[in-house]
Amino acid sequence: MTTDELKKAAGYYAANLVTNNMVVGIGSGSTIAYVIEALGKRVAEEGLQIIGVATSDKTRRTAAHLGIPIYNVDDVDHIDLTIDGADEIDQAFAAIKGGGAALLWEKIVAINSTKNVWVVDETKLSPKLTHFLPVEVIPYGSDQVFRRFENRGYHPTWRLDQNGNPVRTDSANYLIDLHLDHIEDPFVLGRELTSMVGVVEHGLFLDIVDEVIVGRPDGIEVFNAHPEPLI
Amino acid sequence: MTTDELKKAAGYYAANLVTNNMVVGIGSGSTIAYVIEALGKRVAEEGLQIIGVATSDKTRRTAAHLGIPIYNVDDVDHIDLTIDGADEIDQAFAAIKGGGAALLWEKIVAINSTKNVWVVDETKLSPKLTHFLPVEVIPYGSDQVFRRFENRGYHPTWRLDQNGNPVRTDSANYLIDLHLDHIEDPFVLGRELTSMVGVVEHGLFLDIVDEVIVGRPDGIEVFNAHPEPLI
Repeated sequence: MTTDELKKAAGYYAANLVTNNMVVGIGSGSTIAYVIEALGKRVAEEGLQIIGVATSDKTRRTAAHLGIPIYNVDDVDHIDLTIDGADEIDQAFAAIKGGGAALLWEKIVAINSTKNVWVVDETKLSPKLTHFLPVEVIPYGSDQVFRRFENRGYHPTWRLDQNGNPVRTDSANYLIDLHLDHIEDPFVLGRELTSMVGVVEHGLFLDIVDEVIVGRPDGIEVFNAHPEPLI
Repeated sequence: MTTDELKKAAGYYAANLVTNNMVVGIGSGSTIAYVIEALGKRVAEEGLQIIGVATSDKTRRTAAHLGIPIYNVDDVDHIDLTIDGADEIDQAFAAIKGGGAALLWEKIVAINSTKNVWVVDETKLSPKLTHFLPVEVIPYGSDQVFRRFENRGYHPTWRLDQNGNPVRTDSANYLIDLHLDHIEDPFVLGRELTSMVGVVEHGLFLDIVDEVIVGRPDGIEVFNAHPEPLI
């Protein structure tokens, strides 16, 4: 199977976790596009009744187009289940997200969800986190933040669009990507980034996921991030 | 003297700390309006040469109008001295700022400044911090943040404009004001707020100020936040 076929298989599997009357957080990215496609089919064919909460303007538009009612995160009192992707997941279920520039809204939806499921193809699993780390920053003063990252040896780069202008997130902020060899302790780095003035949010998703659905050539594998103790 | 006269005396005193060729961070608020006025006079009358960095769009406009050249915080490689106000300062030089909605830019300028001076009238001094605490939040998901504040007993209120709409900061975010009886440990609360997803910045300014200039009816009093050890 191609990577795309792995994504599709995993995405369709994840969409079947959704049951009637759920409030469902819907993530962003190429794997999640298949989740949305599958949910749209279930709405049309089975009459599945759900409310969706989108993590990006793009997801909102796509889902609404497929007949999935989309509410604002502020207009629901809870989210039952959020299905999202990830750029990289390590052995301790820490992840990097934000390659698609939606990390802030994704994290806001995630922390307001009773259950979080990530859907990935197997290429996203890694013993340690080595993917570039997106950091969303306030435009005002962002050159100063960039210099601080340089001084700390984090090898920052600006996220630019095809015209060479800074990408604006859905909250109109900038993104700086940090290129670390690997992240030794995601919790320590996360706290450091969070405490920096001008940093809105970073792409480390720690202690968030409950279940990871992995598309492999020989089928779907499901990992429980909080396994029951054996005794 | 009226409170306004105390502000003016302190503001004019502070403006005299500025020397030729300095890059000067210029704060916001009613006391700082007098600093800007005094700096404008010095530029006009003495030919004082400075570069200003403004902490709000309003400050930028006022200062530029008085002939003070204003640069963006990202276009200077350092700031020598920042003069700003404060809503309340406690005995340990911790302060609450943000009543004027400019806390984020004020903090960004402050942490990039070699020296920070606050100018206040004596009514702003307090043994403990009791002023409402402004928190700048991302609009997306801000109702959820508001509910978390409620659940924690922080008595949040939305900062609204005269039409009843949420105030937008210069970075287009919302402000939630927390009404605590007093703040027992500003460092603990600051870390808690910083770690919350959706919180951009809070109005606690800790370990930032170097000198506080206080306008009192009997004159100006200057406090050094880092006194030399006696021996």
